[in-house]
Amino acid sequence: MNIDKSYQKTADLSEKLADYKKRVHTFLSAKINPRRPFSLYEPIHYTMSGDGKRLRPALTLLTVEAFASSVDNALPAAAALELLHNFTLVHDDIMDRDATRRGRATVHNKWDLNIALLSGDGLVALAYEALLETKSEKILSISRLFTQGLIEVCEGQALDIEFEKRNDVLADEYLDMIGKKTACLLSMCTQIGGLLANVTTENIALLKQFGWSLGIAFQIQDDLLDITADQKLLGKDFGSDIKQHKKTYILIHALEKGSKAQVREISDIYNKTDIDNDDIFKVKDIFTEIGAIKHTQELATSYFSTAKNALEGLSESADIKYLDAFLNFVLNRKA
Amino acid sequence: MNIDKSYQKTADLSEKLADYKKRVHTFLSAKINPRRPFSLYEPIHYTMSGDGKRLRPALTLLTVEAFASSVDNALPAAAALELLHNFTLVHDDIMDRDATRRGRATVHNKWDLNIALLSGDGLVALAYEALLETKSEKILSISRLFTQGLIEVCEGQALDIEFEKRNDVLADEYLDMIGKKTACLLSMCTQIGGLLANVTTENIALLKQFGWSLGIAFQIQDDLLDITADQKLLGKDFGSDIKQHKKTYILIHALEKGSKAQVREISDIYNKTDIDNDDIFKVKDIFTEIGAIKHTQELATSYFSTAKNALEGLSESADIKYLDAFLNFVLNRKA
Repeated sequence: MNIDKSYQKTADLSEKLADYKKRVHTFLSAKINPRRPFSLYEPIHYTMSGDGKRLRPALTLLTVEAFASSVDNALPAAAALELLHNFTLVHDDIMDRDATRRGRATVHNKWDLNIALLSGDGLVALAYEALLETKSEKILSISRLFTQGLIEVCEGQALDIEFEKRNDVLADEYLDMIGKKTACLLSMCTQIGGLLANVTTENIALLKQFGWSLGIAFQIQDDLLDITADQKLLGKDFGSDIKQHKKTYILIHALEKGSKAQVREISDIYNKTDIDNDDIFKVKDIFTEIGAIKHTQELATSYFSTAKNALEGLSESADIKYLDAFLNFVLNRKA
Repeated sequence: MNIDKSYQKTADLSEKLADYKKRVHTFLSAKINPRRPFSLYEPIHYTMSGDGKRLRPALTLLTVEAFASSVDNALPAAAALELLHNFTLVHDDIMDRDATRRGRATVHNKWDLNIALLSGDGLVALAYEALLETKSEKILSISRLFTQGLIEVCEGQALDIEFEKRNDVLADEYLDMIGKKTACLLSMCTQIGGLLANVTTENIALLKQFGWSLGIAFQIQDDLLDITADQKLLGKDFGSDIKQHKKTYILIHALEKGSKAQVREISDIYNKTDIDNDDIFKVKDIFTEIGAIKHTQELATSYFSTAKNALEGLSESADIKYLDAFLNFVLNRKA
């Protein structure tokens, strides 16, 4: 294995993430800022200048670097994955009627529906533009994978909308939905990284498994944090899934395993128009009684282990230390 | 030039269009119908089963056939162009709040905003999927061209929205907007056809010119038909651009060239909330007085001639008879 010494000497993950974030930012600024008309590109610029962690392009770049390939060639594809992710955010925010995201007004709130719809479309177009700038003999496979990912993301969102209207969603259906809606994109990040680094088919399979399991664990973790995280960290967002009547794995499990009385109590609260903090605490207590929180934590841990195992499988041909640090970083976050 | 005899013997353009329409339909049905979830693919199926003429894929296939290449390999790309066109229709209908299209409820009207938004996104994804099925050594150039087209279509739509709010749009700005919004896609159809048939760079330039000029002439023709077509043919759609306060080339020219009194009269009618048929006749009379209708007809004719000239430039290396028939068919329509 041929690892560049200077790369081994670079500092910890957070410095690496900061460096990648800066590079992706430079790439995106050069692509977006000179374009006109403003009515299309100003909201796109606004979206891309939010305070995101840029976890998806980082995952692609970390994968490429783990196989000791230069990340320079991977930048357009990494940026494409970030653009695609932001497309989903802008359109999902419209569908969820969300007024804010990460403390800023959503695009349809700051401008209007038409501008948000159109700038989401523009983000997809720019994502493909960036992707097709990639210099790689695997560009066709990469483009096909990217497209299958986009299709799955749309399917996942359709299932999410369907599930909001159903009261009988099964745990497996929920996991399938978050697989398409969240895990798929993270799995694309690692697989495209692998394709860019020209790794073996076996390693692509492991990278797919790593990204996918990380994605599922990440989403379940998100569901958990919504009601278990330190309120001071999350501020007014505490219990926001419940307040917005959103289905989460914890809820679905609780409805499946709870007694009739417990299920009725949960349903009564979920059916209220205005759910307050006392309601959240009550729901949280019932979830705890049923064992739904513990079970959900165990499920997240099991996906975490699958991701970890995939990573260990890769360790023969790659320096996995940053990917491992990334996995821990994502899953140990407190908010 | 090597033209297949059986191809020369096939009947007139309308039979050819019917044959292409059927082939595109079969391709699309196989792609869309087996997919789930229904909540995503039912509205997509609905959109793609409307009574469209499938002019865009036909234009690609006619181009390929003009160079005596087999159209079989061109079917995925042709279908991709039709999917992309339908994506623009679904999202444009949302933005225009249109309740019907070609006599049927629009997707957001039949279902809802979220479903329409998402199925439009799905159409883009399926368009790329179809495109990337293309077996051609030019697939990368084709994909890049397709992506630049998508970007231009978004820019054109953004300009269209901008222009609705402005009263000082210049004729050149309007032509630039319809270039991006309409002509660009038709020009992609001919260029991609040329790339699939492996034609020379000079012929690609002529195909671009042909598709572009045809597209501009087509859109100006559309503007004209809205107020000059036989009312019985158009039925209740007579003057719909004026009723919907839409900017057209005729209007912009009339506002530029009319006297103060004429401009005021036109503006007064456009500013009414409810514009009736008498208003339309009045506007039409003023347009005629100013010479705006005649001028617009001349402009359409000049783009038509440019398209015709490009076609003649191609005639040395291609059998242009169907493309020529297509040009006449599109521009001589009465409604």
